[in-house]
Amino acid sequence: MLSVLSDTYFMDQAIKEAHKALQEDEVPVGAIVVCDQKIIARAYNQTEKLQDATAHAELLAITAAAAHLGSKFLWECTMFVTLEPCIMCAGALYWSRMGRLVYGASDDKKGFMNHGKVLLHPSTKLEYGVCHDACADLLSGFFAAKRM
Amino acid sequence: MLSVLSDTYFMDQAIKEAHKALQEDEVPVGAIVVCDQKIIARAYNQTEKLQDATAHAELLAITAAAAHLGSKFLWECTMFVTLEPCIMCAGALYWSRMGRLVYGASDDKKGFMNHGKVLLHPSTKLEYGVCHDACADLLSGFFAAKRM
Repeated sequence: MLSVLSDTYFMDQAIKEAHKALQEDEVPVGAIVVCDQKIIARAYNQTEKLQDATAHAELLAITAAAAHLGSKFLWECTMFVTLEPCIMCAGALYWSRMGRLVYGASDDKKGFMNHGKVLLHPSTKLEYGVCHDACADLLSGFFAAKRM
Repeated sequence: MLSVLSDTYFMDQAIKEAHKALQEDEVPVGAIVVCDQKIIARAYNQTEKLQDATAHAELLAITAAAAHLGSKFLWECTMFVTLEPCIMCAGALYWSRMGRLVYGASDDKKGFMNHGKVLLHPSTKLEYGVCHDACADLLSGFFAAKRM
């Protein structure tokens, strides 16, 4: 039985965001920001809809979380995101001083871990692989359908 | 005499944006995006005003340029920015496929060149050092005043 406070529960919420992206024919990546066990921001990739290369789920979620808190620093927050962030999003996580980052699927091509955890702020805790298969299947299904 | 089409002319326009940041007590960094010799986007750092760690001049300028063109890809564009972009902004430049990047002052601590040009898209041309002293003096003056 899931605890509502578990990483799995929160990653499921990020996966729901990714499904919204899928429904809009966007690359299915979703992110949420949690503070004091509450979800304060939800976002999904909208690069096609907005025609804005910066509209990754993580950036949108960071902006929304900062607006919610009235603070550009997110020390006490955790981001759950279905895919390993890219360099751009890792940089945004750095500047926001995100307290903790949890991602699901890895991104061997574009993920920030190709450059190492050093891209994150030293105070940002990192975990990955939470709901890995569900996160990865969403993406592989999306790209497989594109190739058909 | 300046040519209105020179890199120096356009960097002067980016410096004007940086001055707007300075007037608002923001770290003075300005950026413009040029397409077909026309300035299609102007922005300056607004991380304090917006309380959003992602509100760097470059990200705001990319979003504005994409909105102007109705395209997330900026192949035919040049960004002029007064300071070497950080990792986040280099990632945004990558995703936008910026045609050319010209920056003024270097950022030895946080600049993307610490990781090398590889962070930019292979098709992005790169130049730097244009109006270097004017760009650097703005920043050093800002931080010197903060320490007083």
